[in-house]
Amino acid sequence: MTGLPDILERGARSVDETLEELLPKASGPEGRFHEAMRYAVFNGGKRLRPVLATLSAAVFGVTGIRALRTAAAVEMIHCYSLIHDDLPALDNDDLRRGRPTCHRAFDEATAILAGDGLQSLAFEVLADPATHDDAEVRIGLVGALAHASGCIGMIAGQAIDMAAEHITLDAPAIRRLQALKTGGLFVFSARAGAILAKADEAAMIAFGRDLGTAFQITDDILDVEGDQEALGKATGKDAGAGKATLVEALGLEAARRKAVELSERAIDALENFGEAADGLRDMARFAVHRRV
Amino acid sequence: MTGLPDILERGARSVDETLEELLPKASGPEGRFHEAMRYAVFNGGKRLRPVLATLSAAVFGVTGIRALRTAAAVEMIHCYSLIHDDLPALDNDDLRRGRPTCHRAFDEATAILAGDGLQSLAFEVLADPATHDDAEVRIGLVGALAHASGCIGMIAGQAIDMAAEHITLDAPAIRRLQALKTGGLFVFSARAGAILAKADEAAMIAFGRDLGTAFQITDDILDVEGDQEALGKATGKDAGAGKATLVEALGLEAARRKAVELSERAIDALENFGEAADGLRDMARFAVHRRV
Repeated sequence: MTGLPDILERGARSVDETLEELLPKASGPEGRFHEAMRYAVFNGGKRLRPVLATLSAAVFGVTGIRALRTAAAVEMIHCYSLIHDDLPALDNDDLRRGRPTCHRAFDEATAILAGDGLQSLAFEVLADPATHDDAEVRIGLVGALAHASGCIGMIAGQAIDMAAEHITLDAPAIRRLQALKTGGLFVFSARAGAILAKADEAAMIAFGRDLGTAFQITDDILDVEGDQEALGKATGKDAGAGKATLVEALGLEAARRKAVELSERAIDALENFGEAADGLRDMARFAVHRRV
Repeated sequence: MTGLPDILERGARSVDETLEELLPKASGPEGRFHEAMRYAVFNGGKRLRPVLATLSAAVFGVTGIRALRTAAAVEMIHCYSLIHDDLPALDNDDLRRGRPTCHRAFDEATAILAGDGLQSLAFEVLADPATHDDAEVRIGLVGALAHASGCIGMIAGQAIDMAAEHITLDAPAIRRLQALKTGGLFVFSARAGAILAKADEAAMIAFGRDLGTAFQITDDILDVEGDQEALGKATGKDAGAGKATLVEALGLEAARRKAVELSERAIDALENFGEAADGLRDMARFAVHRRV
């Protein structure tokens, strides 16, 4: 399992169609800014987080537009964070998935605004009654996504990541960084189905947390040993930039074992869900066995 | 009436106390980022938008924490937009209200993240049941604020403002720019009380729209003829940067007449509200007669 499993490919296509509908069409003097939003969203990403959200929804029998709008919102947040992380003042990346990053394809100012616009659009989409007719559900999604992606969540993780270029983090501090920076959106996506169905979220939160960590460790392993061409970005970059990773803290072999263990534990968390959760199980296996 | 009227001063102090409670305390490796959020929020601003929100709430009998949390959310959005607008890639401002801008006091990366964090915190605060126990009200606030501040609202206005450095906008295009860039948050704040009380919003939207335009025109007039020291920022900057303003398009005298006319029309929109709306009437007068 090195490429994207079929179920993830199909999910990604539905997410793309929804994003296509939700993003503003470029026109008028602000057209270039809207183009930049689209450019950053349609970037060849694997759509792991939004597909996770749709697979989570399917576990609870929620399908169609409700699942897809929720999925699109989390992907907008993810894409905004990538635009801002790539900026010269932050990671200063010129390429993402083999294409110029947003600020290279457009300009820095437009990229900053495109990120801002994607963040607010995510919340605007979730707040719209088209996402769910129950206001409790919609506000539950907004609260969970704002918390996961916010100033004591994903953005705090990014701030720690920057600080880690100057200070040394131990393994627990790195785990906290990654739980904040990457874990939060995985947990949100995993919870999303339970929020949409007003069901108990505990098992899905546990699943999302372990999946997110397994995914992040695998990312860091691929950065060390991965194929630059397949990944579409420079590899070995984290070590060069003094970035804190668990591979660095634990060593390659221990990190690999840890990722597989987390993937298995994530699958165990789904034991009460039967076949409806097979998509999530596929995703947990893919997270650690992928080459991209 | 050149300084801030008493009712606005008192309102601003309550808003500040609420912001103080809602912003994260700086600690851990992400502490510098949280400090930057606080620095940018406690910047000596007049708190016009949040005080407008509390005055609007008072019209409908909504007071205390509900009004103040809503007010704090709109101020967080305003402050995030100022941080990002001040960045070198955008307006490249070193000073705001006589103090170094966020990216000068900290660094660009921290300023970008501080802006991102303030945006998400605004939605997190509104989504919290502490803001209102009715989910319909909370999601109404989130939807209205995301729309006003979003990619077809405030950020589109900012994108047009940047484009206007290279293209010439006629008066209707400038009015559209300002309605998007500045008007949206005024309209949100004016509507906020009606949303909190589930009351009819039409009169408050009309009030907010005219107040916002009157405020913006006055800002542009002050930029041309204002006192650099009282304003705490460079004056005459808009013309130098080729920024599109109505003062430029209409001339100083016509712009002044227009602002007063809008302020009076805003007050007329409140005719059904009696004494409870006196705070809003004060604000409409202050908007055009201020020197700061």
